[in-house]
Amino acid sequence: MSTNDPFEITRQRFDLPPDVIYLDGNSLGALPKGVAERVGQAITREWGAELIGAWNTSGWVDMPRRVGDRVGRLIGAPAGTVVMGDTLSIKVYQALASALELRPDRRVVLSDSGNFPTDLYMAQGLIASLDRGHELRVLEPEAVEAAIDESVAVLMLTEVDYRTGRLHDMKRLTEKAHAAGALVIWDLAHSAGAIPVDVSGAEADFAVGCSYKYLNGGPGAPAFIYVAPHLGETVRPALSGWFGHDAPFAFEPTYRPADGAERMRVGTPPVLALAALDAALDAWEGVDMAALRRRSMELGELFIARVEAGCPELELASPRDPARRGSQVSFRFADGYAVMQALIAEKVIGDFRAPDIMRFGFTPLYLSEGGVERGAAILVDVMRSRRWDQPRFRQRSRVT
Amino acid sequence: MSTNDPFEITRQRFDLPPDVIYLDGNSLGALPKGVAERVGQAITREWGAELIGAWNTSGWVDMPRRVGDRVGRLIGAPAGTVVMGDTLSIKVYQALASALELRPDRRVVLSDSGNFPTDLYMAQGLIASLDRGHELRVLEPEAVEAAIDESVAVLMLTEVDYRTGRLHDMKRLTEKAHAAGALVIWDLAHSAGAIPVDVSGAEADFAVGCSYKYLNGGPGAPAFIYVAPHLGETVRPALSGWFGHDAPFAFEPTYRPADGAERMRVGTPPVLALAALDAALDAWEGVDMAALRRRSMELGELFIARVEAGCPELELASPRDPARRGSQVSFRFADGYAVMQALIAEKVIGDFRAPDIMRFGFTPLYLSEGGVERGAAILVDVMRSRRWDQPRFRQRSRVT
Repeated sequence: MSTNDPFEITRQRFDLPPDVIYLDGNSLGALPKGVAERVGQAITREWGAELIGAWNTSGWVDMPRRVGDRVGRLIGAPAGTVVMGDTLSIKVYQALASALELRPDRRVVLSDSGNFPTDLYMAQGLIASLDRGHELRVLEPEAVEAAIDESVAVLMLTEVDYRTGRLHDMKRLTEKAHAAGALVIWDLAHSAGAIPVDVSGAEADFAVGCSYKYLNGGPGAPAFIYVAPHLGETVRPALSGWFGHDAPFAFEPTYRPADGAERMRVGTPPVLALAALDAALDAWEGVDMAALRRRSMELGELFIARVEAGCPELELASPRDPARRGSQVSFRFADGYAVMQALIAEKVIGDFRAPDIMRFGFTPLYLSEGGVERGAAILVDVMRSRRWDQPRFRQRSRVT
Repeated sequence: MSTNDPFEITRQRFDLPPDVIYLDGNSLGALPKGVAERVGQAITREWGAELIGAWNTSGWVDMPRRVGDRVGRLIGAPAGTVVMGDTLSIKVYQALASALELRPDRRVVLSDSGNFPTDLYMAQGLIASLDRGHELRVLEPEAVEAAIDESVAVLMLTEVDYRTGRLHDMKRLTEKAHAAGALVIWDLAHSAGAIPVDVSGAEADFAVGCSYKYLNGGPGAPAFIYVAPHLGETVRPALSGWFGHDAPFAFEPTYRPADGAERMRVGTPPVLALAALDAALDAWEGVDMAALRRRSMELGELFIARVEAGCPELELASPRDPARRGSQVSFRFADGYAVMQALIAEKVIGDFRAPDIMRFGFTPLYLSEGGVERGAAILVDVMRSRRWDQPRFRQRSRVT
């Protein structure tokens, strides 16, 4: 590696335990330096000293949009089209409710089995509430493209499959959906900060995502929603809360939406969580997303090569072509849960998704080539020694 | 005041600027000691050091219910019937969507003009989405009781009026609504931590509230929702997210609700905000709610007496009988905005609600009799001197 490696610089921006090899930034990003100080300041100097006045003096009221603009720069969204708040589940609901209303004569929500379950659950809940005969059609990922037709109201997909890392072609599927008259919602949970994303170039109608994975915003950090500029003045927000009102402090009796994406704000913004995320986003300063993508692919390729050479019993669950996967690599193994627990006991941290998927995330901002090599070597050693085959590693935790 | 005044003890639990008289705890509670340390620990020791494992090792996954139980004890809710998360706007939506589905043959949502606008906005948004002819009937507060009839599906009220502090009779209105076959949702935003509340005794069906006012959870702190035990196993959550699923980490394709109030959880819990609230709730240790209510009334009566004696031009907007108002006192004055800005410039902090309401909140946990006396004296002096009558005090801020 060259000495002016930009990712040597970004690694200094994180506080990771020195003995840990962290391959789970696709689930919860590592802690960026500066977050604790920034949140501490929001608590003591802003809340503690400025009290209610901090809504104005510390700019709390504009945080959802200001931080949203910072996230927007990582996903190709122009200023003013992204706002932060709530959770990804809520943002999925908002996008889908608005989109269905824009296609009142159609009844199909098309998605795939690689979509994250909460996205599907939220769609099921909305469809049951509407009670107008909508159908959530969930196909295999490979079958989605051929199923786009003029019955489809909304195509709702997660760009990067949370289990396998398989990458959908956002631009092509969006074009095809638009040609059939459908709207498109992209869930970027495993894309934002992981790969180059261009919601404008792809002409997505809505995009949503969380900020606690590759954006390192912390556990339960606020979600984001992008609303395409051509929709910002027309969509009706189903979750019409006072911070999405055009004049929240006029306390008018009737809802009037704010301009653009701000109408997707709902309740009082989570200031402390937004302060954490705002500080965390400093880690992206000067990062070139194309360089990040190249490094992510190199790290993934290195890991696959070492693991496949050492552990023939593990089956690659991710696309072999690095251009067709996001920034994670998954392997199938029937006892994958126990293997992952044994790995974690040796401080190589990935995670497990039922029934048999071991996931490893590659986060160039803080993961080095040396870390990937050591992680792969320990996995190979755990497999060869069968150290995973112990009752204590089979004991399931609440959260996997 | 006696030397074993329990509120002398609780005052030591807050960090307030010594020169400030804070009469706005009804909008944003003051900072309890211990919050910054607890959040700092959640960031550095839990997120930073335990990383993804903290979901299990630091109990993050159970925080919404564990903290919910602590809030539940302040509102008369049994363990397991309250969960934290999202914002109050979202919780209003959840409660109303579930309640309307339980009364499919009725079309009226009855509320009043003293309800907080976001509650009404969320109802408007839900009704528009459902598109089944529901009507949001908004009456004057005094007219609500007589309007409860068998057309009403849901009675949705805020117990304490955010403008005037007027208190509804929760038990009587709930009984009357139940007798007419309606369900009842109580918004406790200005009740929880302000007055004794007994959702069980009143037989409320749903109750919702925020935790950043009298519960001192910090700006944008998570909201709560109470679901009566008899509904916990039957209501369908409209916002059916994965953390409300019976087995969130089984990643099943179809939503199955968790037992009881936990089905009202939606997305990933906001861990840092929950840590702040959890620490903030320590300030309630040993507090007797009946004693708190007595003190709150004394402070309010003292304030009214001093202000009315000194400022005949201010009109009391709150009920004169302290038993008929919550823990705030409001005065009407056409130039109330400017008066409030002048007061804030002298470090007596209340707030203003359009068009002409000056609000003063009384929070016995950290507000002393001496503070109330000084605050009233400064208000009298500002009014008599007309120091408020300056252009700089008429300049409106974004957040009022």
